[in-house]
Amino acid sequence: MSDLAKTARDVRRAVGAAHAERKSIGFVPTLGALHDGHLALFERARQQCGYVVVSIFVNPTQFPPGTDFESYPRDLDGDVKKVEGAGVDLVFSPSVVEIYPPGDHTSVEVTGPLAECLCGPHRPGHFRGVTTVCARLFNIVQPDRAYFGEKDHQQLLIIKQMVRDLRFPLEIVSVPTVREPDGLAMSSRNAYLSSEERRAAVVLPRALFAARDLLNAGERSAAAVLATAREVIDSESLVSLQYLELRDAETLREIHAVEQAAVLALAAHVGPARLIDSILLTPTDY
Amino acid sequence: MSDLAKTARDVRRAVGAAHAERKSIGFVPTLGALHDGHLALFERARQQCGYVVVSIFVNPTQFPPGTDFESYPRDLDGDVKKVEGAGVDLVFSPSVVEIYPPGDHTSVEVTGPLAECLCGPHRPGHFRGVTTVCARLFNIVQPDRAYFGEKDHQQLLIIKQMVRDLRFPLEIVSVPTVREPDGLAMSSRNAYLSSEERRAAVVLPRALFAARDLLNAGERSAAAVLATAREVIDSESLVSLQYLELRDAETLREIHAVEQAAVLALAAHVGPARLIDSILLTPTDY
Repeated sequence: MSDLAKTARDVRRAVGAAHAERKSIGFVPTLGALHDGHLALFERARQQCGYVVVSIFVNPTQFPPGTDFESYPRDLDGDVKKVEGAGVDLVFSPSVVEIYPPGDHTSVEVTGPLAECLCGPHRPGHFRGVTTVCARLFNIVQPDRAYFGEKDHQQLLIIKQMVRDLRFPLEIVSVPTVREPDGLAMSSRNAYLSSEERRAAVVLPRALFAARDLLNAGERSAAAVLATAREVIDSESLVSLQYLELRDAETLREIHAVEQAAVLALAAHVGPARLIDSILLTPTDY
Repeated sequence: MSDLAKTARDVRRAVGAAHAERKSIGFVPTLGALHDGHLALFERARQQCGYVVVSIFVNPTQFPPGTDFESYPRDLDGDVKKVEGAGVDLVFSPSVVEIYPPGDHTSVEVTGPLAECLCGPHRPGHFRGVTTVCARLFNIVQPDRAYFGEKDHQQLLIIKQMVRDLRFPLEIVSVPTVREPDGLAMSSRNAYLSSEERRAAVVLPRALFAARDLLNAGERSAAAVLATAREVIDSESLVSLQYLELRDAETLREIHAVEQAAVLALAAHVGPARLIDSILLTPTDY
């Protein structure tokens, strides 16, 4: 049975006791509305760490104005049931004022090439909100390892950059995207989709897989790969692509030919949902 | 004899060993060119902690363009001699690339009322540089307590706000300003002064003390206190006042009457030096 902490003080006490037992601390920050993608993160943390902390916090600062902060799915009771069987030791479910007390004025920001592309220009302030909340959560939990999904590859790189630059004494571990049987990446926002939109959304992973197949067949031109993926998505009128880009997997620089590890990343609107997905394309694949 | 570390890795190793001996860790970040003000910080750390780390790092990001980063006094050999007798266990003297490696892109910033007044508008980017380097140093050293002088009262408040907001697991301890026999606050930048400028600079503490005397005599009007202090400074043609302000000691809000703890803070140019000073005025004083 997982313990539930509402305050940073309670987290520190519980984690301190685990530390005293010489357990390593694994940490998975989430926005809740847990799905199998989260469960894969918990499982990896469980394998590598003696004590696993999961935070459930719909972080207001990472939602740009006019986006879905208010409507984002919240189901703490359901989430607590889901973590029960997952070997999570502690669930941290703070209030907004616990993380951002009155008079709060401190932010952490990663600028530069990682932040300026893909979701960056489309979601102003989003990554600053992510790094700002992660810095706080890292300092509260003080984990040895923190776990992030590969689906949001840009977020993963930005968190890694923050940890490296600010010298947080922890390791970032990434875990592959978990997908529905038809390929759609697990996301709490999939709950926004009507059944028709849900069926339409499958073009997103299909586009990524078509691109991978093309590369596996020997194609190296970024333009050709992108055209193939875009054609799959454009065939579905319910899906409106925001961006589809092929970039270096580490630096996120634009590439014209796939000669080393690359990421094909996209964001699209499907009905009320803005969905993201990505696929890593590594030279050993083809 | 103090140990000398050049890298974060060496600091972590030394501090880890001290932790294993259950020693508490005290940390004093400095820009070097050590003087008796620094020694007071070391002494306080020595009293409260089992292991004392001092960093000596002229942090480029806290020097606004066109200020004295290049000319700032550097004397590592002299500094190491000064810490010898002060009970400092470890001196951390990193290179710039050790703290800001190539591709570094992360900053920490405190915005809001604390940052927008006094030195804030006059030194754009200065406090962001201070918080950015302190976040890194705190994560490298992982101290239980970090020590800052009261002379730069605004910096002290901003660091405290960062620690509170980002939940750094450490306590900020402030230590009273150390002054020369004639009252001038100790500062590495006093070395910039000619003997004539050095004599003239004494109007700065005299102005602060005159203000305090006036309050002790019963005056409560901020305007009267400021006028008295300003008159002292204006009597010295070699001193050019940048600002002189009376503000709430905690919030730095402007005050019109001294009814609770206040800070009288100033910055002035004296020859090539920009000097700051401040005095805390608490109701129990008068």
